[in-house]
Amino acid sequence: MAEIACYYISGSPPCWTVMLALEAKGLAYEARRLDNAKGEQKGEAFLAVNPRGTVPVLVCDGLVVRETNAILAFLDAFEPEPPLFGSNPPHTAAIWQMVEETDPLLREPIGSVTRPIFRGRAAEMRDQIDVAIAQVRDALDELEATLAGMSYLVGEALSAADLAVYPAIMQLMRGATREGAETLDLQVAPLAQHYPGIAAWAGRVETLPGHERAYPPHWR
Amino acid sequence: MAEIACYYISGSPPCWTVMLALEAKGLAYEARRLDNAKGEQKGEAFLAVNPRGTVPVLVCDGLVVRETNAILAFLDAFEPEPPLFGSNPPHTAAIWQMVEETDPLLREPIGSVTRPIFRGRAAEMRDQIDVAIAQVRDALDELEATLAGMSYLVGEALSAADLAVYPAIMQLMRGATREGAETLDLQVAPLAQHYPGIAAWAGRVETLPGHERAYPPHWR
Repeated sequence: MAEIACYYISGSPPCWTVMLALEAKGLAYEARRLDNAKGEQKGEAFLAVNPRGTVPVLVCDGLVVRETNAILAFLDAFEPEPPLFGSNPPHTAAIWQMVEETDPLLREPIGSVTRPIFRGRAAEMRDQIDVAIAQVRDALDELEATLAGMSYLVGEALSAADLAVYPAIMQLMRGATREGAETLDLQVAPLAQHYPGIAAWAGRVETLPGHERAYPPHWR
Repeated sequence: MAEIACYYISGSPPCWTVMLALEAKGLAYEARRLDNAKGEQKGEAFLAVNPRGTVPVLVCDGLVVRETNAILAFLDAFEPEPPLFGSNPPHTAAIWQMVEETDPLLREPIGSVTRPIFRGRAAEMRDQIDVAIAQVRDALDELEATLAGMSYLVGEALSAADLAVYPAIMQLMRGATREGAETLDLQVAPLAQHYPGIAAWAGRVETLPGHERAYPPHWR
């Protein structure tokens, strides 16, 4: 059996995506948590593994892979079942398109909303939050429309698109329900009230065996 | 035979990447050039194809695919030969990693160097250029070291990594040899003098059948 390790920061959406992919593939792995507050991501020990100091990083039988989407592609080649990137070219195209758009359309604007909230600076960063949440809501409207017609983001089976998007939305929910966020008028939480289709989909993603193991430890 | 069209902006590195991939696969396609100066990328006709207004866009038998890397993944699924993403998992990982890093490590800093030069604003943007060219040279040093040991960026065959990186480097060369750039001390051109391994590799990429067809029309 392959020796697999995943370096991650608890609560980082792309790290969570990779861990969900490992669970979806049924691959055993050691989760190696880095403490961002202690600067471990830029510390000597981790830089020896990944000189760029980025997470997530996957190590599989000595092979080091960085970049979230590259790790997903590697895992799909390494363990083809179940396929995370579809089983025909149009399906593959739709999944990759959503995976590639997750950073600009979701992770980045969601980070612009949640970072100030987590740091207790929501009031002073209100302008940035207002711009970002409008972009986020546009993206959520699209996802809600997509999910009106199918069970997962690209069709009837779980794919890399779901694994990319889900952690970003969970981070948004965590930020939007934090103390201090109620004055921001984000209009996204509770998810079931604002986006019932997305909420039902999130419930389906949560039935993935291993979902609990991949859950960010410091959110428990 | 499939009806394929590629919407592009002349000289845009990611558009050029997609056209090179089409050539590498030996696929016939119609190149639909958008005139950025006329705002065609954000015009009604193109927004009807891609509401996000981004290029490149591939249309294949009616299927619309946006996002450069998603288009590359689609093309590799649609026409598997020759493979652009390798033929074993470690190879696939290395190729995807480089493809995913092309934006942050090359396209973005190279754009920060060349945009001011193309716009005749190099002198006033000198600080931005100095920071960006240092990042670019770090990335080029890595590529030069990689190419000391192999013919292409990931192994002995052309892959998506080469197609992603090559246009960005050609854009850098174009900027670095423009009038006004000689005062900037970029230390990248001529390529063969500063990075002989990269220059030799670029020469190999240029032997790709169809290279000439994919070349940016307004550079000719």
